[in-house]
Amino acid sequence: MSNVKTIEWKDDTLVLIDCTKLPVEEKYIECKEYSTLCKAIKVLSVRGAPAIGVSAAYGVVLAAIQAQKETSTKEEYFKFINNAIKELSSTRPTAVNLFWALDRMKKKLDTLNELEKDIIKDKLLEEANKIYKEDIECNMAIGKHGNDVVLENASILTHCNAGALATAGYGTALSVIRYAHSSGKNIKVYADETRPLLQGSRLTAWELVKEGIPTTLITDNMAGYAMKLGKIDMVIFGADRITLNGDVANKIGSYSVAVLAKEHGIPVYAAAPLSTIDISLTDGDEIPIEERNKNEVRQLFGVQTAPNDVDTFNPAFDVTPHKYITGIITEVGILRPPYNLSIPKAFKIKEEIMKDKE
Amino acid sequence: MSNVKTIEWKDDTLVLIDCTKLPVEEKYIECKEYSTLCKAIKVLSVRGAPAIGVSAAYGVVLAAIQAQKETSTKEEYFKFINNAIKELSSTRPTAVNLFWALDRMKKKLDTLNELEKDIIKDKLLEEANKIYKEDIECNMAIGKHGNDVVLENASILTHCNAGALATAGYGTALSVIRYAHSSGKNIKVYADETRPLLQGSRLTAWELVKEGIPTTLITDNMAGYAMKLGKIDMVIFGADRITLNGDVANKIGSYSVAVLAKEHGIPVYAAAPLSTIDISLTDGDEIPIEERNKNEVRQLFGVQTAPNDVDTFNPAFDVTPHKYITGIITEVGILRPPYNLSIPKAFKIKEEIMKDKE
Repeated sequence: MSNVKTIEWKDDTLVLIDCTKLPVEEKYIECKEYSTLCKAIKVLSVRGAPAIGVSAAYGVVLAAIQAQKETSTKEEYFKFINNAIKELSSTRPTAVNLFWALDRMKKKLDTLNELEKDIIKDKLLEEANKIYKEDIECNMAIGKHGNDVVLENASILTHCNAGALATAGYGTALSVIRYAHSSGKNIKVYADETRPLLQGSRLTAWELVKEGIPTTLITDNMAGYAMKLGKIDMVIFGADRITLNGDVANKIGSYSVAVLAKEHGIPVYAAAPLSTIDISLTDGDEIPIEERNKNEVRQLFGVQTAPNDVDTFNPAFDVTPHKYITGIITEVGILRPPYNLSIPKAFKIKEEIMKDKE
Repeated sequence: MSNVKTIEWKDDTLVLIDCTKLPVEEKYIECKEYSTLCKAIKVLSVRGAPAIGVSAAYGVVLAAIQAQKETSTKEEYFKFINNAIKELSSTRPTAVNLFWALDRMKKKLDTLNELEKDIIKDKLLEEANKIYKEDIECNMAIGKHGNDVVLENASILTHCNAGALATAGYGTALSVIRYAHSSGKNIKVYADETRPLLQGSRLTAWELVKEGIPTTLITDNMAGYAMKLGKIDMVIFGADRITLNGDVANKIGSYSVAVLAKEHGIPVYAAAPLSTIDISLTDGDEIPIEERNKNEVRQLFGVQTAPNDVDTFNPAFDVTPHKYITGIITEVGILRPPYNLSIPKAFKIKEEIMKDKE
């Protein structure tokens, strides 16, 4: 297990590690109201598709607690919570896990109409805890399946942070790395720093150093040269949304890494739970790509790095077409092309597993 | 002409704009001793292959002035200057213009044995001024020739800074951009920020904004996605050393940009004077690549961006094999593959031009 605590529910409070403060400070944010969580998602204090999903689920519980205090009629109570769900879902547009988790909480809520408010809150918390627990289980299964394609002595390039800090725990891409490392394979990691917000240097490097996994940090523009020098055997990154044909939306720069890997004959894996796959979209062109504040490119930690009046382009994500993706590592196994066949099959397998559990 | 003054000789002093302070401050360094220049080259206050070459030539003049004060015999005098040449040549290993300029100054010096020290200094200054003037002439010719391949409304991606700040003036890659802009073509520029030292955001963006050329700054990992979106029509970057077969050493990340451009069918041009071509090397594997301090990757402007104990890899340059280079824009025209034929031919043309001038 990873020794990083990203998300914790304690005494009716959602406690989040503040990713914007790492690696310099290990600070935590206490959310007692869902609006505090909305802000934390917007400013990326909590980030990473699975972590956003899990924390949003707890956000609905926070809303239920607030509604109990701030409303009187049942109608007002449900209106308050449903409004909170809407606000939470508008915090970020690309990661599908946010919508997936809120949709699941909404469905749960809709079955609780007849119950007492105290019981409703308990049931919602139960569902959020289930989402939390399932995320960790998924991630551990991703690590185990992914380990099958990690060779002894492999040197693995990863982009951004798909680690414990991007999930309820353990990570997706970093789960594969953790599993391979703890199973005794002598692996090493190259971590792209991942501008503009440096999730690679601030979060991935922090997580991996903390766990004693040999890690070399590089700037994003060094990945191609490192591949040319034979320093990289495989690429694993996470995903914010995957479409039915296997196109992968992930942190800006993932596409460049995938193209470079193809040129060097290096396999590229996306690691993600099935909740990241949006089967309602047929291909990546349909994924909305968030554009963030122009100053993120002109500045760094508040330090000016460019003229204030230069224009910038700042997409938070890009889409890697499926032809560059060797496999998608999920909790039910590694999916292979053609993805429009392997993805629906994976959902069926998952459905059967969930049925067996009930 | 560009309105940036990178290098100036004034009252026996070499005045350099301090590139490390831009874009926040426009500060100048006054070198009265060659060791001040050595330091300025090492810490990148002056950088860019042509600018390093030109300033090193003036460094030999500074050494001659010092030698006149600090030595008595002619033997000591020449020993002092030759030692300075050695020290200057050891400041950076990759850019060939440094060695080319020092070699030219050394050859000049060797013809001055019989003269008075005052006259020697004047002759050396004359030679350095010639190198300076030739660099600007070369750059303007590069701009003119390069303009032939710039289409109306072209969107041009450039990496690092091959501008006025990297040369005696006008620039190499940016000379093409300046020429195309001033000739009335409605061009726009995408500038890679170029981590770790951000020469793109600090220097290229500064130069282009100052001249009113429409510029969009991106992080290095956005170049591939910008190409996929159809935002880029051509790539032009500079060079620190080019080998006989057309392999191009340039700022780290140039190789990635070239591979990405190939994948998208976008032409890639290297712009450089012939003094950047090292015909003594048959291919890019022979070019020494400088590795710089690991903290450049862990920090930015002294701000910590990663755990202090994470390892880093920090090559200052990479080599783009000739197969990715559509053309090399030089002062005698655009060289095309096969470069091992077009490069020697270009040197012959240059030789004839120089003969005609004498």
